[in-house]
Amino acid sequence: MNVGIVGLGLMGGSLALALKKYFIAKKIYGYARSEKSKQEILELNLVDELVELETIIKKCDLIILAIPVDNIISILPQFLEISENTTIMDLGSTKEFIIQNVPEKIRKNFIAAHPMTGTEKNGPKASIDGLYEGKTVVLCNLEDNSQLHVDRAIRIFQEIGMRIVQMDAHNHDVHACYMSHLPHAISFSLANTVMNHEDPKSIIALAAGGFKDMSRVAKSSPIMWSDIFKQNRKNLLDSIDLFENQMKRVRQMVENENYDELKEWMEKANTLHEIL
Amino acid sequence: MNVGIVGLGLMGGSLALALKKYFIAKKIYGYARSEKSKQEILELNLVDELVELETIIKKCDLIILAIPVDNIISILPQFLEISENTTIMDLGSTKEFIIQNVPEKIRKNFIAAHPMTGTEKNGPKASIDGLYEGKTVVLCNLEDNSQLHVDRAIRIFQEIGMRIVQMDAHNHDVHACYMSHLPHAISFSLANTVMNHEDPKSIIALAAGGFKDMSRVAKSSPIMWSDIFKQNRKNLLDSIDLFENQMKRVRQMVENENYDELKEWMEKANTLHEIL
Repeated sequence: MNVGIVGLGLMGGSLALALKKYFIAKKIYGYARSEKSKQEILELNLVDELVELETIIKKCDLIILAIPVDNIISILPQFLEISENTTIMDLGSTKEFIIQNVPEKIRKNFIAAHPMTGTEKNGPKASIDGLYEGKTVVLCNLEDNSQLHVDRAIRIFQEIGMRIVQMDAHNHDVHACYMSHLPHAISFSLANTVMNHEDPKSIIALAAGGFKDMSRVAKSSPIMWSDIFKQNRKNLLDSIDLFENQMKRVRQMVENENYDELKEWMEKANTLHEIL
Repeated sequence: MNVGIVGLGLMGGSLALALKKYFIAKKIYGYARSEKSKQEILELNLVDELVELETIIKKCDLIILAIPVDNIISILPQFLEISENTTIMDLGSTKEFIIQNVPEKIRKNFIAAHPMTGTEKNGPKASIDGLYEGKTVVLCNLEDNSQLHVDRAIRIFQEIGMRIVQMDAHNHDVHACYMSHLPHAISFSLANTVMNHEDPKSIIALAAGGFKDMSRVAKSSPIMWSDIFKQNRKNLLDSIDLFENQMKRVRQMVENENYDELKEWMEKANTLHEIL
C-alpha cells in the first residue's frame, strides 16, 4: 500500500514513523507547504519522497490529512477526483463540522479519525516514535463509509497498536471538548494569569510538577487551537460555563470559610482517581 | 546527627530516604499517629526507629515536621522545651501564617522550608527515592534564625541535591499561590466539571496526556489542601479573580468569534515556553 501524508508535524510525522516501523506502507509520500518543513522532513527522513498533491492523488491508496482542522476542510475540494478505492482520512481534533463539509462525492472514502494522543509541540521535529502505541483512536460515523475504507482504517490502527473506539461525530465533539478543548482553554488562561502576575525569576524558583503539568499544553500551537475552538465553539462555551460554576463554588467556599464543604468537594474530585 | 521526622508520608518518607542515601543522619527516628501508617513505615523500612515525640525531643539534633500545615501550628507547643541547639523545620506549602504562629521561645530554632516538589499521592507508600534531587527548596525569613540552624538546614538541602532559594514568607505565599495553590483549585474544578458531565466510559476513551496532566493534582489529599487554602486564603481569592478574568476573556473571544485576538492571546501564553 502506498500512503500519502499531507502535513508532517507531530501527528503526521509520528504516523509516518509508525507506518514504517510496522511495515504497513510500501512507500510513504509526503506533502508539506513551507520550505522549512520540507528541509526538516528530509533531514529526519520521515518519508520516502516529498511530492506535490497531484502525485499523492495519483499514487496513494491511503491519503492522511494531518493538518489544522480548518485546513482539512479547505483542502478537501482538491481530492474530488480520487479513485473510489482511495481512502482519505483526517486526524483532526474536531469531527462534526469536518464531516458536514466533506464533499458528497468523496464522503464514502473519508474516514474521520481522532487519535487521542499528542504533545504540546509541533512541526516535523516534534515527531515521536511510539506516539500512537497503546493509545486510543476515535473513529466517527463509519456507517457513512464504504467497507473497503473502514476495514483499511481499522486494520492500520490495530497494526500500529491502537485501541479503537467508535463514536458518533456529535458525541465525539462533546466529549473531546470536556476532555481536551476545555483543558486547553484553562491551561492557556492559567499561563496568561501567571505570566501577567509573576516575574520570570519567581516562576523558575517555584514551578514544580503541578504547575508544569497544568501549563504544558499552553505551549500548543495557536493556529491549530484557535481553529479547534472555532469548530467546537458551542460545546466549548457550554463547557466553560460549567467549569466556571465550579470555580465560583471553590471561590465561595474559601471566601465563606466553609472548609468542611471544601473538603467534600475535593473528595469528589479525588474520585476521578478510580477511573484514571 | 540524629534526625526525627514527624509525619512519614510523601514528603517526610522521601526525606528519610534521602537522608539515609547521602549518609546525613546517624539515626533517623520517626513519629506517626495512625497504626496503619506505623505498619507501612516499618514495612518500607523508612526509619531506624518509630518513637514517641518525647524521644524525638530528647535525642534529635534536627526535628522535621512533614505534616499538614494546620497540624504544624497545633503541634508546635509540644516542642517548647527543645535545646537551643536543636533545629526544628517544617516542610509546609504555606509560610507566613505558620511563622506568625511559631512560639517566640523556639523562633530562632524554627526553619521555615518549602521544597517545591511532590506528587498527588500521600502516605508512607508514596515515598520516592530522589524526590528532592535537582529540585528547589524555598527557605523563608532566615534572618530570624540562629546561625547554627541556618547553616545546618542549608547544608542538608545542599547535600541531598537541592537548589536553595531564600525568600520573605509573605512573598513566598504570593508566589506559591500562583504557582501551586491556584493550579490545584483549577485542577479540582476541572475534575469536578468532568465527573459531573461525562460518563466513566467516555472519560477513559478520550483521556489523553493533556487531561491526565491537568487533572493529576485533583487526586491530592483534601485534608492537606483544604488547610493550605485556609492558610493562604487571601492570596488564593485574589489569584482566582485574576484567573477568572482570563477565563472570561477566552469565553468572550470565542463567543464573539474574535479568532485573531484569540490567537494573539494563545501566543502570549506560549511565551511561558521561554521560561519553563
